[in-house]
Amino acid sequence: MMPDTALANLLGPKGWLTGPDTEQYCRDWLDRYGVEPLGVARPTSTEEVAAVVRLCHASGLSVVPQGGNTGLCGGAVAQRSDTVIVSLARMTAMDMPNPASTTIRVEAGVVLATLHAALEPHGLVFPMHLGAEGSARIGGLIGTNAGGSHAFRYGMMQDLVLGLEVVLPDGTVWDGLRAVQKDNAGYQLRKVFGGAEGTLGIVTRAVLKLYPAPRQRATALLALPDAAAAVTLATHLRAEAGEFLSGLEFFSDLGLAWILKHLDALTYPLETRGGVYALVELTSGSARVPLGEILNAALEWGMERGLVIDGALAMSEQQRAHVWRLREEQPEGQRLEAAQLKHDIAVPPP
Amino acid sequence: MMPDTALANLLGPKGWLTGPDTEQYCRDWLDRYGVEPLGVARPTSTEEVAAVVRLCHASGLSVVPQGGNTGLCGGAVAQRSDTVIVSLARMTAMDMPNPASTTIRVEAGVVLATLHAALEPHGLVFPMHLGAEGSARIGGLIGTNAGGSHAFRYGMMQDLVLGLEVVLPDGTVWDGLRAVQKDNAGYQLRKVFGGAEGTLGIVTRAVLKLYPAPRQRATALLALPDAAAAVTLATHLRAEAGEFLSGLEFFSDLGLAWILKHLDALTYPLETRGGVYALVELTSGSARVPLGEILNAALEWGMERGLVIDGALAMSEQQRAHVWRLREEQPEGQRLEAAQLKHDIAVPPP
Repeated sequence: MMPDTALANLLGPKGWLTGPDTEQYCRDWLDRYGVEPLGVARPTSTEEVAAVVRLCHASGLSVVPQGGNTGLCGGAVAQRSDTVIVSLARMTAMDMPNPASTTIRVEAGVVLATLHAALEPHGLVFPMHLGAEGSARIGGLIGTNAGGSHAFRYGMMQDLVLGLEVVLPDGTVWDGLRAVQKDNAGYQLRKVFGGAEGTLGIVTRAVLKLYPAPRQRATALLALPDAAAAVTLATHLRAEAGEFLSGLEFFSDLGLAWILKHLDALTYPLETRGGVYALVELTSGSARVPLGEILNAALEWGMERGLVIDGALAMSEQQRAHVWRLREEQPEGQRLEAAQLKHDIAVPPP
Repeated sequence: MMPDTALANLLGPKGWLTGPDTEQYCRDWLDRYGVEPLGVARPTSTEEVAAVVRLCHASGLSVVPQGGNTGLCGGAVAQRSDTVIVSLARMTAMDMPNPASTTIRVEAGVVLATLHAALEPHGLVFPMHLGAEGSARIGGLIGTNAGGSHAFRYGMMQDLVLGLEVVLPDGTVWDGLRAVQKDNAGYQLRKVFGGAEGTLGIVTRAVLKLYPAPRQRATALLALPDAAAAVTLATHLRAEAGEFLSGLEFFSDLGLAWILKHLDALTYPLETRGGVYALVELTSGSARVPLGEILNAALEWGMERGLVIDGALAMSEQQRAHVWRLREEQPEGQRLEAAQLKHDIAVPPP
C-alpha cells in the first residue's frame, strides 16, 4: 500500500488532508517558508501519532510536527514534498489542575490562551505569555522552548515543563510524564526535547507547572535614552522589585514608529519619545505588598539619573492592554513594514 | 608506561595520591561505600582533567569524579580498585561576578560556602543552601542536581546553571560555557549533565545564575499535626507569600527526637510538639514589603484551621540559626542514631 493510502486509512478523512485542504498548514506566518507536503496528518491520540510516525519511518518520509504554526522561521512547515506534517491541533484534552502540586496535564495541541482561560476559575496561572497566545499550542511552545514576556520571572517553557510524553522518531512512545517539582532522578532527558524543534520526537502530552494567580498588578511604559540605560534600570529593578518583576520588555523607537504607522488603533501614550522603551510589569500574590509604591520609587530613581526620560503607570486594565499591545504588535508592525527587528534574541550584557 | 606512573608524571606528587594518602577520598560520608582506588588524581586545570581522562580512557580504567565527597549514596567513591578518583578540590578559581547579567563563572572545585562569602560584598547571592555547604563543591552539586533548602523558590542546581564546561569520557573538552539567561539556541545539552552523577563527563567549570541579595528575612518554626496539614499550609503560603517563600522545609517528630537526643547544643524552641514540623523562611529584596506581617497572617490562618499547633518567628539571627540547625542536623541525628529518614525525596502530593 502507498504510504498516503495507509495514512488515509489510518486517520480517516478528517485526519488525513491532502492537496488544497492542506493550505493553512503549508506556509509559515510570514509566508516565507514551506512547500506543499505529501499531506497533513491530524491524529487525535498519542497512539495515532505513534502509528503515523512508525508508518513514515518505515516509508522513509520526513515528519514535521506542527502546533499553532505561529513560527516565523519555517520550523513547522515542509522543506521537501516527501514530508508529512503532523498537526497536533486535534489533541486538545486537558486534565483538571492539581491544586496541591500546582500542575496540570495537557495534550500538546492545547492553545495557550485556552489553557489560561481554563485555569482562571481555579486561581492558578500558567505564566507563559506571548503575542501569539491565541494560536500557539503547548507542543510548539515546548519544541521551540518559547520565552515569552514573563520568562524573566518564571523562566522559559522548558522551566515550566515537569513531565513529557514524546513519540520518538521510530514511533516508540517515551513516557516521561512526571509531575515532581524537585526531580533529580536519573538523566533529565525531558530537558533535551525542549527547544529541539521536534527533531528528537513529537511531544504529545506535558505536565506543566502552575503558579497561584496574582492578586495585584502594576504596569508602566517607560521611554529611555538608550539600551545602556535599560540595562542599568533592569539591574536596579531586579534588586528592588525582583520578586514582583513579571514582565520587563524592550522595544526600539523604530519598532514603535512602524506600529504607529501601520496600526491605526495604536497611539503613543507618553509625551516624549525615547531611543528605546521598556514595559515593566510587577505582580504579586499578596494583597499586602505596596506594588504601585515600589514601581513608582524605581521610576523616580531612574528619572533622577536620566535613565528614564518619560513614563506612566497604566491606571486601568484598558491602559494596561494598550501598553502591552505596543509590545506585542511589534512583529505585526515589522510584517507590514516588510522588515525585521528581532526581539527574541538574548546575549550576555557587555 | 603503567598508567599510574603516567598519572604521577602528569600530575606531580600533589596531583597524584596513592595508598594511605587517598584515605579521605576513599569512603563516603556515612562510611558505607568505597574501596581503595588505583589512586586519586587532583588536577589543577581543565587541560589536566582532560589529560587524566584521556589516559584512563586509553588504559581502560574507570573514572569517578569527586567534589566535596559529601554524598551519602556512594556516587563519588570507587566501587572497583581499577578506578581513578578525579578530585576537583584544587580547581577553585572564581571570576568576578558580572552585576549586569548577574552571573559568575567558577571552577568546579569551589566550595559552596566559599562562593557565598565571595559574593557578599557584591550584594549578590547564589541561592543554593544545604547542610553540607561548608564542604560541598559546585561540580558535585551539578552532578547530583542538588536541591537544597531554597529550591522551592530558586529551583534546583540545574536551574541555576547557565553554562558548563565538561570533559567528556574520551577526554574531549565540551565548551558549553554560555551565560545567557534566555537561551534557546540549539539542543539544551548542558541540561543533561546536571544530575548525571558524572557518568556523562566531568564538569570542570560553570556559569552560575546569581540573584540580588535579599534586604529582609522572616523565619518561623511551626509544629503541625501531620503531613496533610503541611500540604494545605504550603498551598496557602504559596498563594499568599509565593514571591517571598525562600525556604519551606519539613521534618518529622522522630527526626527531631533523634537530634535532641544526640546533639546536646540543640533544644526545642516551642512549647508543644507536633507530628511534623515546617521551617518557613520568607526573604525580600525590597525594604517596602511587610514581611513579618505577611508571615504572621499566614500562621494565624493556619492556627485558626488547626493546621498549625504551635509556632514562633525567629526574633534574632541567633534564633534563626538555631531553627535552621534543627533542619540541617537531621542527617547527623540519623547518622548518630544509625538509622535513615530520607528528606530529599519528592513525590507528587496525593
